[in-house]
Amino acid sequence: MAIFTLSHPRGSREAEAFLQDGARILSAIPVVRNFEVLHQISPKCDFDYGFSMEFENQEAYEAYNAHPSHQSFVQERWETEVARFQEIDLVN
Amino acid sequence: MAIFTLSHPRGSREAEAFLQDGARILSAIPVVRNFEVLHQISPKCDFDYGFSMEFENQEAYEAYNAHPSHQSFVQERWETEVARFQEIDLVN
Repeated sequence: MAIFTLSHPRGSREAEAFLQDGARILSAIPVVRNFEVLHQISPKCDFDYGFSMEFENQEAYEAYNAHPSHQSFVQERWETEVARFQEIDLVN
Repeated sequence: MAIFTLSHPRGSREAEAFLQDGARILSAIPVVRNFEVLHQISPKCDFDYGFSMEFENQEAYEAYNAHPSHQSFVQERWETEVARFQEIDLVN
């Protein structure tokens, strides 16, 4: 998962577009399971949103990282619209 | 969820005891759903573990926070064995 804050104001049309486009583009990558757009509400955490997804194994995660849809989303949207973020990779 | 790092070394008997006791004590609180002990593996994130759980609604979350088992776990174990942590509260 990644938790992040956008350069757009919360609730703005641009923020909603980013969240919707991210969900549409990233959840369509075949190895991605259970994609969720989340809102971060703890006042003790300085991020506004989360994208959460699951991968079957390390190979699936690497296929996601290398997938053209992920790469272009990162370059065209993430790097231009995300003000700050924290990546968190969890295994059980 | 909370991501955290313990004052004990990774893989130590004390670290394992903390994770197991946390899972046992916190998952037994009736409002807690889908409790998971997780290991954080991203080199870009400076925490080693995660405790993840779900709540039906805000009332359930507040019941958890106020529950004696949670309160005593925080005072007796969390405050003495956790070196640093980040709370993250996500809603969809």
